[in-house]
Amino acid sequence: MSSRNATTGAYQRLEKRFARMGALQEAAGMLHWDMAAVMPEGGHESRAEQLAVINVIAHEMLTASETDDLLAQADEAELDDWQSANLHEMRRIHTHATALSPDLVEASTKARAACEKTWREARPKGDFKLVAPKLKAVLDLTREAAAAKADKLGLSPYDALMDEFEPGARAVDITPIFDAYAAFLPGFLGEVLEHQARRPAVIEPQGPFSIESQKKLGEKLMATIGFDFAHGRLDTSLHPFCGGTPDDVRITTRYNEAQFADAMMGVVHETGHAMYERGLPAAWRRQPVGNARGMALHESQSLIVEMQAARSTAFCRFLSPLLNATYPGNEAAFTPENLARFYTRVEPGFIRVSADEVTYPAHVILRYRLEQALVAGDLSLDDLPAAWNAGMKELLGLTVENDREGCLQDIHWFDGAFGYFPCYSLGAMTAAQFFAAAVAAVPGIPAALERGDFGPLMGWLRTNVHERASSLSSPDIVRAATGKPLDAGVFRRHLEQRYLDR
Amino acid sequence: MSSRNATTGAYQRLEKRFARMGALQEAAGMLHWDMAAVMPEGGHESRAEQLAVINVIAHEMLTASETDDLLAQADEAELDDWQSANLHEMRRIHTHATALSPDLVEASTKARAACEKTWREARPKGDFKLVAPKLKAVLDLTREAAAAKADKLGLSPYDALMDEFEPGARAVDITPIFDAYAAFLPGFLGEVLEHQARRPAVIEPQGPFSIESQKKLGEKLMATIGFDFAHGRLDTSLHPFCGGTPDDVRITTRYNEAQFADAMMGVVHETGHAMYERGLPAAWRRQPVGNARGMALHESQSLIVEMQAARSTAFCRFLSPLLNATYPGNEAAFTPENLARFYTRVEPGFIRVSADEVTYPAHVILRYRLEQALVAGDLSLDDLPAAWNAGMKELLGLTVENDREGCLQDIHWFDGAFGYFPCYSLGAMTAAQFFAAAVAAVPGIPAALERGDFGPLMGWLRTNVHERASSLSSPDIVRAATGKPLDAGVFRRHLEQRYLDR
Repeated sequence: MSSRNATTGAYQRLEKRFARMGALQEAAGMLHWDMAAVMPEGGHESRAEQLAVINVIAHEMLTASETDDLLAQADEAELDDWQSANLHEMRRIHTHATALSPDLVEASTKARAACEKTWREARPKGDFKLVAPKLKAVLDLTREAAAAKADKLGLSPYDALMDEFEPGARAVDITPIFDAYAAFLPGFLGEVLEHQARRPAVIEPQGPFSIESQKKLGEKLMATIGFDFAHGRLDTSLHPFCGGTPDDVRITTRYNEAQFADAMMGVVHETGHAMYERGLPAAWRRQPVGNARGMALHESQSLIVEMQAARSTAFCRFLSPLLNATYPGNEAAFTPENLARFYTRVEPGFIRVSADEVTYPAHVILRYRLEQALVAGDLSLDDLPAAWNAGMKELLGLTVENDREGCLQDIHWFDGAFGYFPCYSLGAMTAAQFFAAAVAAVPGIPAALERGDFGPLMGWLRTNVHERASSLSSPDIVRAATGKPLDAGVFRRHLEQRYLDR
Repeated sequence: MSSRNATTGAYQRLEKRFARMGALQEAAGMLHWDMAAVMPEGGHESRAEQLAVINVIAHEMLTASETDDLLAQADEAELDDWQSANLHEMRRIHTHATALSPDLVEASTKARAACEKTWREARPKGDFKLVAPKLKAVLDLTREAAAAKADKLGLSPYDALMDEFEPGARAVDITPIFDAYAAFLPGFLGEVLEHQARRPAVIEPQGPFSIESQKKLGEKLMATIGFDFAHGRLDTSLHPFCGGTPDDVRITTRYNEAQFADAMMGVVHETGHAMYERGLPAAWRRQPVGNARGMALHESQSLIVEMQAARSTAFCRFLSPLLNATYPGNEAAFTPENLARFYTRVEPGFIRVSADEVTYPAHVILRYRLEQALVAGDLSLDDLPAAWNAGMKELLGLTVENDREGCLQDIHWFDGAFGYFPCYSLGAMTAAQFFAAAVAAVPGIPAALERGDFGPLMGWLRTNVHERASSLSSPDIVRAATGKPLDAGVFRRHLEQRYLDR
């Protein structure tokens, strides 16, 4: 009995410790939002100080010997399923935090800051050689960190890196999925471009579109999707994001008076992220198990709302009268058919962030293959540009002329984020699988979307994804929600249906 | 030599500890601003959690035995003047924080929350008896806390309470000043009302005044006073305040489309607070000595801008064309003479927050006398309403009919803030003394204000007040800046000049 109390006591004390860290993380989240959305430029230095102190304190709490002792004392046998999952998450977070020596963390932080700075200079010049030495330092330290984490987690070095962004993501599962897509893409893309060429040309809406009207339209769509303005806001920032906390979700977008379509779809995308945060179980606020799962699952929630639902022809039928009422004089552009064509145009290009739904995975697969080789030591940085360009040729048939549009385009590696890229396409594929499972379970979903009713889709997502939070790994959430592991075939069938009318 | 290093080391380690606490306080300041200005209503619970955790962590750092040890080790003899003043502030803050047992702090927090809640019910009903038992609990715990602090600080209990709000404020200095004003007021007020009756009636500006135009006008006046929008913002909240941090000062106001005058002067007032925060010495950010001094000195900075400068006839000459350009059709109301009369109307009333410059001190003196008696145990709460009403009769000749307009009107006591009220009038009197000294030193100040140029006044304030931060006590800052201790005669002469044209 006393032993039982001791271990339950250890778990309860861990909950208290992690609740404090969770509150600090929430505070940091709000301060980040403020920095991006409303802070005057002169506030940067003091804000950096505030965030650094909050992060250091949270890190000290996590790595304190008392946390270590409590984690060792807590006994899973005496906990219920969610408590046990919470303890599991605590241990995972703790392992990630303690795997690296403070010296390695400090060296890595400095190397990344220096590399990112040089990258900002090298990218516009397309000068990979300028940044290569700095990237070498980052990569060497990343490989050292990957080895240390791999050792602690019992994973391969690359899996150990991915595990921080998407717990449970493993190359052994992902590689065949990506390889199959890479094999499928060239033939499929040719068919899609032919099919597209036979359809009527897309009619572009004519502006200008006032920022005020775009904001109102965005808020209207947020409400349509189910966003609760008593628990969140829409604001403006240079780079759109979803931040804040589950009880106070702050999403942002940016406006361009010449066209409303990107800002509008950006708001829809971030609202998908927001609905996930808002749907996390209130009983587990500020506990590790109550957090959103990982970056891939988060992206699946923005993409199911944006790609699966909002760009569907069904939803374009709802959008059509709304846009006609908002921007009169664009009736030809705002027919449901033209809107659907407008929002599903396919065009292979060099830049990932501008890519369409069909070619986007090629950008990710390229990076996934290259970063695995870099982390494994199988590819030298000197050979990176050539390997990049060969991959673009193979996957999309494009010839890269300038590293600015090649291996210099994304910040990720230069900021030390290796193992992040796969999340984007895992998210897209997971979204397709969730959507198919949701429609199978609730056949009225497409008809509801045509009426602008997200209720049935959101109800399914809330039960099957949001409320599960981090109680399961991502692969287990996919399995529990859809009855099978991630199956890229579902994504391919979605693309065939949408882009070849099959 | 090693002993020197040890003590210097102790001080340096204290600076690091207090810098962390300072960063946490800044973070809390930003989160408070967010809560008041932009947070959706559903964010309250999680925000309370974030703020509670930040406050608890800062409190634990301050009261940790390590802080105690370092404060004991640090040797003033080895520090320069500012370091020494910083150490003095650290010790003062530490003494206030450690004087009370955790049990007393907890009991007091709970009693105040319960009392404030009942007060919100009792005030509209004018039912003092309803809240009296809760106020009794708050007062008893406040007396206990005052005794504990008095013991630690070597002060009287009431001085110990004031010292938290305005370090260095002592009843022995304040009582004669307030008594003299109380003796001066009845005769003076009669003269002012007679003199006012002989002047032309005030012409009211006619609206409506759009919120957008009021915001632009406010920002224009902020810029006129010297507010730097790279280091701050103007937003809207239910209760106007100045928050944020010295590098990112967030002021707020509230708007009424039927009249612009209150919001405009509110912005001017908060800008005075903002200029003080912004003028604090950058080298001492997040250290105790770098903080603004106390509430009375802070109020002196808002009131010197609002009462001494902006309501002057000189500044009304600058305002006149600006207001005519902003709100055409009000030319008769916007003559400099009418504006000055409009902004200096005197009318005795029951409510402190609506009081004019002449009668405001009466409201404060009444509360000062009563709260001293309550803390000393010389006045029982049962007798408070009668004592209040007698005081109003004596000081302003008014008969209170309902406690709603009497002892129930302010939240302060019901929230446990005893010793705060004197700050308001000390601020007003200090502002008058600063302004007179500034004009004596820089005779061009009134002419500059007439041109809308706050530069000369702000230059004097920056050197003589802002940059001194907490390196001196408030009485010493007043003495250093004006050559003498606080002298209410200066305030009285200001009133005679403004209200009797003497």
